[in-house]
Order: sequence, then structure tokens, then C-alpha cells
Amino acid sequence: MKLATYRNGQPDGCLMVVSKDLSAATDVSALAPNLLQAMQDWEQVAPQLQQVSEQLEAGRAPRAVAFEPARCMAPLPRSFQWCDASAFLNHGRLMERAFNTPPIPDFETIPVMYQGASDDFLGAQDEVPMPDESLGIDFEGEFGVIVGPVPMGATPQQALGAVRLLVQLNDWSLRALGPREMKSGFGFLQAKPSTSFAPVAITPDELGDAWLDGRVRLDLEVEWNGEPFGHPNGREMNFSFGELVAHAARTRKLGAGAIIGSGTVSNAAREVGSACIAERRVIEIIDHGEPRTNFMRFGDRVRMRARTRTGELPFGTIEQQVVRAQSPES
Amino acid sequence: MKLATYRNGQPDGCLMVVSKDLSAATDVSALAPNLLQAMQDWEQVAPQLQQVSEQLEAGRAPRAVAFEPARCMAPLPRSFQWCDASAFLNHGRLMERAFNTPPIPDFETIPVMYQGASDDFLGAQDEVPMPDESLGIDFEGEFGVIVGPVPMGATPQQALGAVRLLVQLNDWSLRALGPREMKSGFGFLQAKPSTSFAPVAITPDELGDAWLDGRVRLDLEVEWNGEPFGHPNGREMNFSFGELVAHAARTRKLGAGAIIGSGTVSNAAREVGSACIAERRVIEIIDHGEPRTNFMRFGDRVRMRARTRTGELPFGTIEQQVVRAQSPES
Repeated sequence: MKLATYRNGQPDGCLMVVSKDLSAATDVSALAPNLLQAMQDWEQVAPQLQQVSEQLEAGRAPRAVAFEPARCMAPLPRSFQWCDASAFLNHGRLMERAFNTPPIPDFETIPVMYQGASDDFLGAQDEVPMPDESLGIDFEGEFGVIVGPVPMGATPQQALGAVRLLVQLNDWSLRALGPREMKSGFGFLQAKPSTSFAPVAITPDELGDAWLDGRVRLDLEVEWNGEPFGHPNGREMNFSFGELVAHAARTRKLGAGAIIGSGTVSNAAREVGSACIAERRVIEIIDHGEPRTNFMRFGDRVRMRARTRTGELPFGTIEQQVVRAQSPES
Repeated sequence: MKLATYRNGQPDGCLMVVSKDLSAATDVSALAPNLLQAMQDWEQVAPQLQQVSEQLEAGRAPRAVAFEPARCMAPLPRSFQWCDASAFLNHGRLMERAFNTPPIPDFETIPVMYQGASDDFLGAQDEVPMPDESLGIDFEGEFGVIVGPVPMGATPQQALGAVRLLVQLNDWSLRALGPREMKSGFGFLQAKPSTSFAPVAITPDELGDAWLDGRVRLDLEVEWNGEPFGHPNGREMNFSFGELVAHAARTRKLGAGAIIGSGTVSNAAREVGSACIAERRVIEIIDHGEPRTNFMRFGDRVRMRARTRTGELPFGTIEQQVVRAQSPES
């Protein structure tokens, strides 16, 4: 099934079940007011949501309406934990060259992962406020999972079993701030503004055999200001989501609703392009001795959508514009 | 006023107002079911809680009972954001020597801060499950603030105005995992298990002139297995909480209930001791050429309490035992 969250004036929004073709939706807030609560009560709520989903497919759902992605918040507008890995080693190796940072220890055997801010996720069509164009505004196209409770010390197999929903996301980044935060050893903070999510979160069965070995084996199409930028495939992820979730749970348990991201989708084949500007820039440096692509400007737009072999868009489309943040009132 | 959270089987617990002398408490879940919700609805709820607090002091609160810290969860058992700084530069400089890491850029002018896990905070008397004694189990005594909404780009003064509650906390650390995570540039993750909190969160006015310049000017007494370990004072914090909150909000807004920590309280005067083992060990290395104090073992206990000049314990006492985590069921 597919789930979305409509804006309703509440911080966690209103839970909606969405049809597989993204044409219709129905308000299921009577079953669970929002997705955060549904994650909490999943064992009880999921079968009820599944039943509504089947009714919706059969054209028998009560109060079905046209699905409007513009009304969507992030599927989880807030959560209690958000960890983002860098599980495509091709991207990581290129970024080391871009930032001129020393090689990360055990890079090929232990995932790298930062803890992100989970108090303000953006919806798929929300404007993206940024404080300053000079900070190196960049997108990062990724996949992610939302898990149920994960005990401390879970194995990758146990962790994979805790995956309840898959998501597609844009891990907005400010490249000018990254190197200092990496050198501090404390990791990304100001370099990672609020993250954006595609309209619908989906159960893994929605992907059929494109969900395999804990990986989302779909092309992630990225367009910047209407121009194709890249379409790398999630199958080249060097760690599975089971391994990533287990890494996050090694020394503590994870609560229901924790989100774990893949890091920028990145493929070895150059011709598929990139899912972030920084990666293209470092390839330009390698090829031409200097970067030729600038970072984003206010007013720029980015579109991201994962596509199946048969042309469907299982998560819907992220389509956002970067805007100048308003100064806070003094 | 002072607020606590009693266990009630729900993930966010039950909100209690506690008397200033920590002798009595009353259930205020009819006003706000839990502190997370109260943070959300603060403008409306806080005056009602304040009224109950005044009734409690006057011996007129309905359903007042003896306050039992053993029933406490963390004041916020979960939140949507938890960022912890290292704002006592004395500690940071010693830790650089301990970890033999390169100097952090702009260490004296830009706070360092990591994003922590906020999905599983521990109560003041909860057992502390750790997976392995060999990981360098350590405590870190700290102060922190809980804020209301903070807009992106807030000034330190605006940020300080958003502080609603003060907390005292133990940022549990696994020292064997820290250096690798710092070298990765992605920051602490496995090195920071679930954080513990003293029983009550308090409004800043509870501290009188011990809350000054955005700092908690109290001695933080730390005992390890019943032996005094240190009692550094919060006044030597090199960045104010206003500066720390503004740092966290530079490139995005913070939601109500975000918690910002000070980092390990640490004073230049050697004779006051330390608030974490790692700091004592590096002082031993400096003095004797080698560390003489080992990290914690299963069964060890730690007690932390901030004390006023007149002997009160405004936040109550953290008193915990480290235990071996159970293996997850396969």
C-alpha cells in the first residue's frame, strides 16, 4: 500500500491511503490520526490500512477523492530519529576527492552514517528556504526506509525485517559548510538543512522484484531546472538497508518511525549522470581540472522521481523550488 | 515550575508538576497528556501548569502525591531533535589530546555540535544497557535546554528567548567507538548510546541568579560507585545556550521540544575534578604518562546532581547502573 500525509494545520498532518496509480486517496485519520501514530500502533493499524487500500483499488473506498501531491507534507513530517548513510561507495570516493579529505577508515566494511535533524521534514512540493546562495546549495537524491522498533544489537537480517515502508528523498546539502563540520569530527549539522520527501511512502511489496536484497533497484531520475541531470539506479548500493539499520542499532534500540537513508544514489557508469551537483563537479575536476557546474541559485527547481521499468513512479515526484529564507522577526 | 514525566505505558509518558522541594507531585495529564504535547501548545498550557505549580506549593493542588523519582522517564522520553555541543573548551582541548585528533577549525569562535538520537531517552533511575564492556563506557555530565520553535537564522538573543526549560543530563559515551566516527567526518553515532536525564525539567526562573548569561551556574556533582569524581561548575561554558541554539538554527528552523546540550561540564581548575572519565584519563596521561583510571564495568553506578549554594538539587538526581544489554531474540 501507499501512504501520504495531507496538511491539516497539525504538525504531523493527516494520514491518507493513496491508490497504486496515485490517482485517488482517502482520509484514514479515523484509523490513525497520522503516520507517526500509525508507526507506533502498526501491528493493529496496518491490516486496517491495507483493507482500505484494497477498497480504494476496487473503487469501493468511502470518501475517495483525487490525490493531490501539492497538499502533501512529508509522509512523516517529523520523526524521532533520522540517520543518513553514504552507502554508495562510488559517491563517497568521489566526494573524498571533492572535499580533499583523508580516506575514511574501514570505508568498505563499516557504513558511514550521520544523524540528521528530524523535526522539520519538507513535503514534495514545498518551497525550500535557504539562508544564502553562497553556501553551495545542492540536492542529493536518495532512497530510505522507515522501520518499526529495532532492538539494540539486531542483525542485518533482523533489521531488514523491521523495515515497514520505503521512501524517496532529497537530502538537501550546503556544500560550503560541509568540510568544516567534517573536520570538526562532530559531523554534519548546518550543512544539512531540512530534508524533503516524495509524496508517498510505500510498503516494500509495492516494488515487486525491484525491492531485492534490501535495495531499491530503481532508476532515480533527477532534473535540474527542467534539464536531465542523472538517473543512477539504487541497485549498486554497497550496503543493504538491513546492514544500515543494524549499524544504527548497534549500541541502542531504534524507536518505531526511525528513518534510515541510503545516501546519494551513485553508479560507477558515468553515462547515467549524478544525483547531486557536488558529484558532477568532482567528475568535472577529474576530467577538466576544474568544476564547470555551479551550485543552485534562488529560484532554481529540482525534480526527482524513481521510475520502474514499466514507467510507473512508485513514490510520486519531488518537485521543489529553492527560495531565500525570510529573516526572523526581531 | 518543575515538570516530570511518569511512566504510564505510553511512549511519551504522563506529565506531572513537581513541587520545588521535589517532595510532591500532581498528575496534569488533563492539561497536556505529556511534555512533548505541552511543548507544542506551550503558550496555552504553560500558564495552566504554572497555576497548578502554585497550588502545589500552597498545599492546595488536587490529587497531590509524594514525588517518586523512580517512576520518572526522561522529562521528554522522545523528542524530534537533540543536538549536543562541546561548549566547555577546557574539555574539548583535553579531548583533542586524549584522542590525538587534529585541532578543530575555528574551535574558539564556532561551537562544535553533533546531532544525537532522540528516539529513546532514559529516565534518571533507569538501568543503562550497554552491549560490551570493552567499548569504553563513559558518562558525561551536562546541562541542556528545551526550546520552543526557533526560526532559521535566529540571533543568539532571539534563540535565548526561545528557551523554555532547563535540564540536567548524562550523555553516555562509548569511547572506543568515538575516534573512528570522528575520523569518518560523519560524527558520533554508535559512540553515543541513549542519553539519560535528571527527573525534572525546570523553567529558568527556578534557578534565580544561577541562570545568567545563558549559562547554568551550578556545581554538577558527579559520583562513580559512591566516590566523588568531580563537581565542575556550569559558569565556565565558553558559548552561551543562546549561541548554541542559534548555531543549531543557522540553516533551518527548530521545532518545539528540541533539546540542545552543553557538552561535558569542565573547569580549568584541576581540583574540581571532571564530569567524565575520558577527561580524567587524559589528565592522568599528562601528569603520569599513562591513564590510570579504567572505564565503567557492568554493575557500576553513577550519580549526578547539580547543587545550589544553599544545598538544593534543582533537577533532582541521576542515579543509574550500567547493565549488559540483552541480545535481541532471533
